[in-house]
Amino acid sequence: MKADGLSSPALSALIEALRALPGVGPKSAQRMAHHLLQHDHDGAERLARSLDTALATVRHCALCHTFTEDEICETCAAPDRDRSQLCIVESPADQSAIEQTRSYKGQYFVLLGRLSPLDGIGPNDLQLAQLIERATDGEVKEVVIATSFTNEGEATAHYIGALIKARAKDKGIELKVSRLARGVPVGAELEYVDLGTIAQALVDRR
Amino acid sequence: MKADGLSSPALSALIEALRALPGVGPKSAQRMAHHLLQHDHDGAERLARSLDTALATVRHCALCHTFTEDEICETCAAPDRDRSQLCIVESPADQSAIEQTRSYKGQYFVLLGRLSPLDGIGPNDLQLAQLIERATDGEVKEVVIATSFTNEGEATAHYIGALIKARAKDKGIELKVSRLARGVPVGAELEYVDLGTIAQALVDRR
Ligand SMILES: [Zn+2]
Ligand SMILES: [Zn+2]
Repeated sequence: MKADGLSSPALSALIEALRALPGVGPKSAQRMAHHLLQHDHDGAERLARSLDTALATVRHCALCHTFTEDEICETCAAPDRDRSQLCIVESPADQSAIEQTRSYKGQYFVLLGRLSPLDGIGPNDLQLAQLIERATDGEVKEVVIATSFTNEGEATAHYIGALIKARAKDKGIELKVSRLARGVPVGAELEYVDLGTIAQALVDRR
Repeated sequence: MKADGLSSPALSALIEALRALPGVGPKSAQRMAHHLLQHDHDGAERLARSLDTALATVRHCALCHTFTEDEICETCAAPDRDRSQLCIVESPADQSAIEQTRSYKGQYFVLLGRLSPLDGIGPNDLQLAQLIERATDGEVKEVVIATSFTNEGEATAHYIGALIKARAKDKGIELKVSRLARGVPVGAELEYVDLGTIAQALVDRR
Protein backbone atom coordinates (compact mmCIF):
# COMPACT_ATOMS: atom_id res chain seq x y z
CA MET A 1 0.00 0.00 0.00
CA LYS A 2 1.49 3.29 -1.09
CA ALA A 3 0.46 6.00 1.32
CA ASP A 4 -0.32 8.66 -1.28
CA GLY A 5 -2.46 6.30 -3.33
CA LEU A 6 -4.13 5.11 -0.14
CA SER A 7 -5.20 1.49 -0.74
CA SER A 8 -5.65 1.80 -4.52
CA PRO A 9 -2.85 0.68 -6.86
CA ALA A 10 -4.75 2.28 -9.79
CA LEU A 11 -4.73 5.64 -7.99
CA SER A 12 -1.02 5.26 -7.16
CA ALA A 13 -0.32 4.48 -10.83
CA LEU A 14 -2.26 7.54 -11.97
CA ILE A 15 -0.36 9.81 -9.55
CA GLU A 16 2.92 8.35 -10.82
CA ALA A 17 1.88 8.80 -14.48
CA LEU A 18 0.91 12.45 -13.92
CA ARG A 19 4.50 13.12 -12.83
CA ALA A 20 5.54 12.65 -16.48
CA LEU A 21 4.11 16.14 -17.04
CA PRO A 22 6.77 18.89 -16.82
CA GLY A 23 6.61 20.91 -13.60
CA VAL A 24 4.43 18.37 -11.74
CA GLY A 25 5.83 17.09 -8.44
CA PRO A 26 4.39 14.41 -6.14
CA LYS A 27 2.05 16.78 -4.27
CA SER A 28 0.65 18.33 -7.45
CA ALA A 29 0.22 14.91 -9.02
CA GLN A 30 -1.76 13.68 -6.00
CA ARG A 31 -3.90 16.81 -6.07
CA MET A 32 -4.58 16.39 -9.80
CA ALA A 33 -5.48 12.70 -9.47
CA HIS A 34 -7.82 13.28 -6.50
CA HIS A 35 -9.47 16.20 -8.29
CA LEU A 36 -10.16 14.18 -11.44
CA LEU A 37 -11.49 11.13 -9.56
CA GLN A 38 -13.58 13.09 -7.06
CA HIS A 39 -14.88 15.99 -9.18
CA ASP A 40 -14.20 15.56 -12.89
CA HIS A 41 -14.63 12.09 -14.41
CA ASP A 42 -15.63 13.71 -17.71
CA GLY A 43 -12.42 15.76 -17.78
CA ALA A 44 -10.33 12.66 -17.02
CA GLU A 45 -12.08 10.72 -19.81
CA ARG A 46 -11.55 13.65 -22.21
CA LEU A 47 -7.85 13.81 -21.29
CA ALA A 48 -7.36 10.07 -21.86
CA ARG A 49 -9.09 10.20 -25.28
CA SER A 50 -7.22 13.33 -26.41
CA LEU A 51 -3.89 11.73 -25.43
CA ASP A 52 -4.76 8.66 -27.52
CA THR A 53 -5.86 10.77 -30.49
CA ALA A 54 -2.83 13.05 -30.35
CA LEU A 55 -0.43 10.10 -30.07
CA ALA A 56 -2.07 8.47 -33.08
CA THR A 57 -2.29 11.54 -35.32
CA VAL A 58 0.24 14.23 -34.42
CA ARG A 59 3.67 14.01 -36.05
CA HIS A 60 6.41 16.33 -37.27
CA CYS A 61 6.19 18.10 -40.64
CA ALA A 62 8.63 16.53 -43.11
CA LEU A 63 9.78 19.99 -44.24
CA CYS A 64 9.86 22.24 -41.16
CA HIS A 65 9.50 19.70 -38.28
CA THR A 66 6.68 21.53 -36.49
CA PHE A 67 3.68 19.54 -35.21
CA THR A 68 1.11 18.58 -37.84
CA GLU A 69 -1.35 15.80 -38.67
CA ASP A 70 -0.27 15.70 -42.32
CA GLU A 71 2.95 14.87 -44.13
CA ILE A 72 3.49 18.61 -44.75
CA CYS A 73 2.10 21.22 -42.34
CA GLU A 74 -0.39 23.97 -43.25
CA THR A 75 2.27 26.70 -43.16
CA CYS A 76 4.67 24.81 -45.45
CA ALA A 77 1.80 23.95 -47.82
CA ALA A 78 0.22 27.43 -47.87
CA PRO A 79 0.52 29.02 -51.35
CA ASP A 80 0.40 32.56 -49.91
CA ARG A 81 3.42 32.26 -47.57
CA ASP A 82 6.61 33.95 -48.75
CA ARG A 83 9.08 31.21 -49.73
CA SER A 84 12.00 33.67 -49.90
CA GLN A 85 12.09 33.97 -46.10
CA LEU A 86 13.01 31.15 -43.73
CA CYS A 87 12.70 31.68 -39.96
CA ILE A 88 14.64 29.30 -37.70
CA VAL A 89 13.14 28.63 -34.26
CA GLU A 90 13.91 26.20 -31.45
CA SER A 91 10.44 24.79 -30.88
CA PRO A 92 6.83 24.66 -32.11
CA ALA A 93 5.94 26.86 -29.11
CA ASP A 94 8.36 29.55 -30.35
CA GLN A 95 6.92 29.26 -33.86
CA SER A 96 3.43 29.64 -32.38
CA ALA A 97 4.51 32.81 -30.53
CA ILE A 98 5.83 34.34 -33.75
CA GLU A 99 2.70 33.36 -35.69
CA GLN A 100 0.56 35.08 -33.07
CA THR A 101 2.33 38.39 -33.73
CA ARG A 102 1.07 38.26 -37.38
CA SER A 103 4.34 40.07 -38.29
CA TYR A 104 5.89 37.31 -40.38
CA LYS A 105 4.61 35.74 -43.59
CA GLY A 106 7.53 33.49 -44.58
CA GLN A 107 8.39 29.85 -43.92
CA TYR A 108 9.87 28.14 -40.83
CA PHE A 109 12.40 25.57 -39.82
CA VAL A 110 11.93 24.17 -36.29
CA LEU A 111 15.15 22.86 -34.73
CA LEU A 112 13.37 20.89 -31.99
CA GLY A 113 16.18 21.86 -29.63
CA ARG A 114 19.31 23.98 -29.51
CA LEU A 115 23.02 23.30 -29.15
CA SER A 116 23.63 22.34 -25.54
CA PRO A 117 27.01 20.72 -24.83
CA LEU A 118 26.08 20.18 -21.17
CA ASP A 119 23.02 18.15 -22.20
CA GLY A 120 24.98 16.36 -24.92
CA ILE A 121 23.05 18.04 -27.76
CA GLY A 122 25.45 18.70 -30.63
CA PRO A 123 25.09 19.77 -34.28
CA ASN A 124 24.24 16.21 -35.36
CA ASP A 125 21.17 16.15 -33.12
CA LEU A 126 19.47 19.14 -34.78
CA GLN A 127 19.25 17.84 -38.39
CA LEU A 128 21.32 20.81 -39.49
CA ALA A 129 22.25 19.20 -42.82
CA GLN A 130 18.59 19.35 -43.84
CA LEU A 131 18.38 22.97 -42.65
CA ILE A 132 21.50 24.04 -44.59
CA GLU A 133 20.21 22.45 -47.81
CA ARG A 134 16.83 24.15 -47.36
CA ALA A 135 18.36 27.55 -46.58
CA THR A 136 20.61 27.39 -49.66
CA ASP A 137 18.07 25.99 -52.14
CA GLY A 138 18.17 29.25 -54.16
CA GLU A 139 14.51 30.07 -53.41
CA VAL A 140 15.29 31.34 -49.90
CA LYS A 141 16.71 34.89 -49.99
CA GLU A 142 16.75 35.61 -46.25
CA VAL A 143 17.21 33.44 -43.18
CA VAL A 144 15.85 34.95 -39.94
CA ILE A 145 17.44 33.24 -36.97
CA ALA A 146 14.97 33.38 -34.07
CA THR A 147 16.55 31.10 -31.51
CA SER A 148 16.28 32.20 -27.88
CA PHE A 149 18.44 34.98 -26.46
CA THR A 150 19.94 32.64 -23.89
CA ASN A 151 23.60 31.62 -23.97
CA GLU A 152 22.73 28.36 -25.69
CA GLY A 153 20.31 30.05 -28.10
CA GLU A 154 22.93 32.67 -29.05
CA ALA A 155 25.60 30.01 -29.55
CA THR A 156 23.17 28.06 -31.72
CA ALA A 157 22.42 31.20 -33.75
CA HIS A 158 26.11 31.95 -34.34
CA TYR A 159 26.91 28.36 -35.27
CA ILE A 160 23.98 28.02 -37.69
CA GLY A 161 24.53 31.47 -39.19
CA ALA A 162 28.19 30.68 -39.94
CA LEU A 163 27.33 27.30 -41.49
CA ILE A 164 24.62 28.79 -43.72
CA LYS A 165 26.81 31.68 -44.87
CA ALA A 166 29.69 29.33 -45.71
CA ARG A 167 27.44 26.99 -47.68
CA ALA A 168 25.79 29.88 -49.56
CA LYS A 169 29.22 31.23 -50.51
CA ASP A 170 30.28 27.76 -51.76
CA LYS A 171 27.19 27.61 -53.93
CA GLY A 172 27.57 31.22 -55.11
CA ILE A 173 24.15 32.16 -53.70
CA GLU A 174 23.24 35.61 -52.35
CA LEU A 175 21.64 35.08 -48.97
CA LYS A 176 20.88 37.50 -46.15
CA VAL A 177 21.23 36.01 -42.66
CA SER A 178 19.48 38.08 -40.00
CA ARG A 179 18.83 37.72 -36.30
CA LEU A 180 15.83 38.92 -34.30
CA ALA A 181 16.63 42.42 -33.08
CA ARG A 182 17.50 43.26 -29.55
CA GLY A 183 14.26 44.16 -27.98
CA VAL A 184 13.75 40.61 -26.87
CA PRO A 185 15.07 40.75 -23.30
CA VAL A 186 18.44 39.01 -22.97
CA GLY A 187 18.20 35.75 -21.01
CA ALA A 188 14.55 35.24 -21.85
CA GLU A 189 12.84 32.18 -23.32
CA LEU A 190 11.15 33.33 -26.53
CA GLU A 191 7.81 31.66 -25.85
CA TYR A 192 7.30 33.74 -22.69
CA VAL A 193 8.05 37.11 -24.27
CA ASP A 194 5.09 39.43 -24.91
CA LEU A 195 3.90 39.52 -28.50
CA GLY A 196 4.53 43.25 -29.05
CA THR A 197 8.21 42.82 -28.20
CA ILE A 198 8.50 39.90 -30.60
CA ALA A 199 6.78 41.90 -33.34
CA GLN A 200 9.20 44.83 -32.84
CA ALA A 201 12.18 42.51 -32.84
CA LEU A 202 11.01 41.06 -36.15
CA VAL A 203 10.79 44.52 -37.75
CA ASP A 204 14.25 45.48 -36.42
CA ARG A 205 15.98 42.21 -37.28
CA ARG A 206 19.65 42.72 -37.98
CA MET B 1 -6.39 26.83 -37.03
CA LYS B 2 -5.87 27.51 -33.36
CA ALA B 3 -2.57 29.27 -32.88
CA ASP B 4 -1.43 27.34 -29.83
CA GLY B 5 -2.21 23.98 -31.44
CA LEU B 6 -0.55 25.16 -34.65
CA SER B 7 -2.30 23.34 -37.50
CA SER B 8 -3.30 20.25 -35.51
CA PRO B 9 -6.82 19.98 -34.05
CA ALA B 10 -5.71 16.91 -32.06
CA LEU B 11 -2.94 18.95 -30.43
CA SER B 12 -5.36 21.80 -29.69
CA ALA B 13 -7.78 19.30 -28.12
CA LEU B 14 -5.01 17.84 -25.95
CA ILE B 15 -3.95 21.30 -24.74
CA GLU B 16 -7.58 22.07 -23.91
CA ALA B 17 -8.03 18.74 -22.08
CA LEU B 18 -4.90 19.30 -19.96
CA ARG B 19 -6.51 22.47 -18.61
CA ALA B 20 -8.93 20.24 -16.67
CA LEU B 21 -6.02 19.63 -14.29
CA PRO B 22 -6.03 21.99 -11.27
CA GLY B 23 -3.40 24.73 -11.47
CA VAL B 24 -2.75 24.29 -15.21
CA GLY B 25 -3.22 27.42 -17.36
CA PRO B 26 -2.98 27.74 -21.15
CA LYS B 27 0.82 28.19 -21.24
CA SER B 28 1.47 25.21 -18.95
CA ALA B 29 -0.98 23.07 -20.92
CA GLN B 30 0.80 23.90 -24.18
CA ARG B 31 4.18 23.14 -22.62
CA MET B 32 2.90 19.79 -21.27
CA ALA B 33 1.36 18.76 -24.60
CA HIS B 34 4.47 19.67 -26.60
CA HIS B 35 6.70 17.88 -24.11
CA LEU B 36 4.68 14.66 -24.28
CA LEU B 37 4.44 14.65 -28.09
CA GLN B 38 8.05 15.65 -28.69
CA HIS B 39 9.90 13.81 -25.93
CA ASP B 40 7.71 11.32 -24.05
CA HIS B 41 5.26 9.22 -26.08
CA ASP B 42 5.65 6.41 -23.52
CA GLY B 43 4.71 8.76 -20.68
CA ALA B 44 1.66 10.00 -22.61
CA GLU B 45 0.56 6.43 -23.31
CA ARG B 46 1.05 5.51 -19.65
CA LEU B 47 -0.98 8.52 -18.56
CA ALA B 48 -3.87 7.66 -20.90
CA ARG B 49 -3.95 4.02 -19.72
CA SER B 50 -3.72 4.93 -16.02
CA LEU B 51 -6.58 7.42 -16.43
CA ASP B 52 -8.72 4.69 -18.03
CA THR B 53 -7.84 2.17 -15.32
CA ALA B 54 -8.42 4.61 -12.46
CA LEU B 55 -11.77 5.73 -13.90
CA ALA B 56 -12.86 2.09 -14.22
CA THR B 57 -11.68 0.86 -10.82
CA VAL B 58 -11.38 3.64 -8.24
CA ARG B 59 -14.48 4.45 -6.20
CA HIS B 60 -15.37 5.68 -2.71
CA CYS B 61 -15.43 3.32 0.29
CA ALA B 62 -19.04 2.63 1.35
CA LEU B 63 -18.09 3.16 5.02
CA CYS B 64 -15.55 6.00 5.16
CA HIS B 65 -15.77 7.47 1.60
CA THR B 66 -12.02 7.47 0.92
CA PHE B 67 -10.72 6.20 -2.43
CA THR B 68 -10.60 2.42 -2.83
CA GLU B 69 -10.99 -0.26 -5.48
CA ASP B 70 -13.18 -2.40 -3.21
CA GLU B 71 -16.60 -1.98 -1.62
CA ILE B 72 -14.85 -1.36 1.73
CA CYS B 73 -11.35 0.13 1.90
CA GLU B 74 -8.31 -1.56 3.48
CA THR B 75 -8.38 0.68 6.54
CA CYS B 76 -12.06 0.06 7.27
CA ALA B 77 -11.58 -3.69 6.71
CA ALA B 78 -8.35 -4.01 8.73
CA PRO B 79 -8.88 -6.17 11.87
CA ASP B 80 -6.04 -4.44 13.75
CA ARG B 81 -7.36 -0.86 13.49
CA ASP B 82 -8.93 0.55 16.67
CA ARG B 83 -12.69 0.77 16.11
CA SER B 84 -13.20 2.93 19.21
CA GLN B 85 -11.61 5.94 17.49
CA LEU B 86 -13.09 7.76 14.50
CA CYS B 87 -11.10 10.54 12.81
CA ILE B 88 -13.03 12.98 10.62
CA VAL B 89 -11.11 14.55 7.71
CA GLU B 90 -12.07 16.69 4.74
CA SER B 91 -10.36 14.71 1.97
CA PRO B 92 -8.48 11.52 1.09
CA ALA B 93 -5.34 13.69 0.83
CA ASP B 94 -5.77 14.77 4.47
CA GLN B 95 -6.33 11.15 5.50
CA SER B 96 -3.16 10.21 3.62
CA ALA B 97 -1.20 12.91 5.48
CA ILE B 98 -2.38 11.57 8.85
CA GLU B 99 -1.62 7.97 7.84
CA GLN B 100 1.92 8.96 6.93
CA THR B 101 2.54 10.22 10.48
CA ARG B 102 1.91 6.65 11.79
CA SER B 103 0.47 8.32 14.91
CA TYR B 104 -3.11 7.15 14.55
CA LYS B 105 -4.46 3.61 14.53
CA GLY B 106 -8.24 4.21 14.51
CA GLN B 107 -10.84 4.51 11.75
CA TYR B 108 -11.73 7.43 9.46
CA PHE B 109 -14.67 9.26 8.00
CA VAL B 110 -13.86 11.38 4.93
CA LEU B 111 -16.27 14.29 4.41
CA LEU B 112 -15.22 14.90 0.78
CA GLY B 113 -15.60 18.62 1.41
CA ARG B 114 -16.39 21.07 4.18
CA LEU B 115 -19.18 23.48 4.98
CA SER B 116 -18.79 26.41 2.63
CA PRO B 117 -21.83 28.70 2.39
CA LEU B 118 -20.11 30.81 -0.30
CA ASP B 119 -19.70 27.73 -2.53
CA GLY B 120 -23.19 26.51 -1.69
CA ILE B 121 -21.93 23.49 0.29
CA GLY B 122 -24.25 22.91 3.26
CA PRO B 123 -24.75 20.12 5.82
CA ASN B 124 -26.81 18.06 3.36
CA ASP B 125 -23.91 17.85 0.91
CA LEU B 126 -21.53 16.15 3.36
CA GLN B 127 -23.57 13.01 4.17
CA LEU B 128 -23.56 14.04 7.82
CA ALA B 129 -26.49 11.75 8.69
CA GLN B 130 -24.29 8.75 7.89
CA LEU B 131 -21.43 10.26 9.91
CA ILE B 132 -23.64 10.91 12.98
CA GLU B 133 -24.99 7.34 12.94
CA ARG B 134 -21.47 5.94 12.64
CA ALA B 135 -20.07 8.17 15.42
CA THR B 136 -22.87 7.18 17.81
CA ASP B 137 -22.99 3.44 17.03
CA GLY B 138 -21.80 2.62 20.56
CA GLU B 139 -18.53 1.08 19.35
CA VAL B 140 -16.90 4.49 18.78
CA LYS B 141 -15.66 6.02 22.07
CA GLU B 142 -13.81 9.02 20.68
CA VAL B 143 -14.29 11.22 17.64
CA VAL B 144 -11.17 13.15 16.54
CA ILE B 145 -12.18 16.05 14.33
CA ALA B 146 -9.30 16.76 11.92
CA THR B 147 -10.82 19.25 9.52
CA SER B 148 -8.53 22.05 8.34
CA PHE B 149 -7.71 25.03 10.56
CA THR B 150 -9.19 27.44 8.04
CA ASN B 151 -12.35 29.43 8.79
CA GLU B 152 -14.47 26.93 6.89
CA GLY B 153 -12.69 23.96 8.43
CA GLU B 154 -13.20 25.36 11.95
CA ALA B 155 -16.88 26.09 11.27
CA THR B 156 -17.29 22.55 9.98
CA ALA B 157 -15.59 21.17 13.10
CA HIS B 158 -17.85 23.13 15.46
CA TYR B 159 -20.99 22.21 13.54
CA ILE B 160 -20.16 18.49 13.38
CA GLY B 161 -18.95 18.39 16.99
CA ALA B 162 -22.20 19.90 18.24
CA LEU B 163 -24.34 17.50 16.16
CA ILE B 164 -22.45 14.44 17.37
CA LYS B 165 -22.55 15.49 21.04
CA ALA B 166 -26.30 16.16 20.85
CA ARG B 167 -27.01 12.79 19.21
CA ALA B 168 -24.79 10.93 21.71
CA LYS B 169 -26.65 12.60 24.58
CA ASP B 170 -30.00 11.60 23.06
CA LYS B 171 -28.84 8.00 22.82
CA GLY B 172 -27.27 8.06 26.30
CA ILE B 173 -23.83 7.21 24.91
CA GLU B 174 -20.54 8.36 26.45
CA LEU B 175 -18.50 9.87 23.64
CA LYS B 176 -15.38 12.03 23.69
CA VAL B 177 -15.20 14.61 20.91
CA SER B 178 -11.69 15.97 20.40
CA ARG B 179 -10.04 18.30 17.91
CA LEU B 180 -6.47 18.23 16.57
CA ALA B 181 -4.35 20.35 18.90
CA ARG B 182 -3.04 23.73 18.04
CA GLY B 183 0.34 23.12 16.56
CA VAL B 184 -1.19 22.95 13.15
CA PRO B 185 -0.64 26.54 11.95
CA VAL B 186 -3.87 28.51 11.82
CA GLY B 187 -5.01 29.22 8.25
CA ALA B 188 -3.16 26.23 6.82
CA GLU B 189 -4.48 23.45 4.58
CA LEU B 190 -3.82 20.19 6.44
CA GLU B 191 -2.35 18.32 3.49
CA TYR B 192 0.52 20.82 3.19
CA VAL B 193 1.53 20.73 6.87
CA ASP B 194 4.74 18.89 7.73
CA LEU B 195 4.23 15.43 9.19
CA GLY B 196 5.94 16.14 12.55
CA THR B 197 3.51 18.96 13.25
CA ILE B 198 0.55 16.75 12.42
CA ALA B 199 1.93 13.98 14.67
CA GLN B 200 2.34 16.43 17.59
CA ALA B 201 -1.15 17.80 17.05
CA LEU B 202 -2.55 14.26 17.23
CA VAL B 203 -0.81 13.60 20.55
CA ASP B 204 -2.03 16.93 22.00
CA ARG B 205 -5.58 16.70 20.69
CA ARG B 206 -8.01 18.56 22.88
ZN1 LIG C 1 6.02 22.45 -42.14
ZN1 LIG D 1 -13.18 2.94 4.28
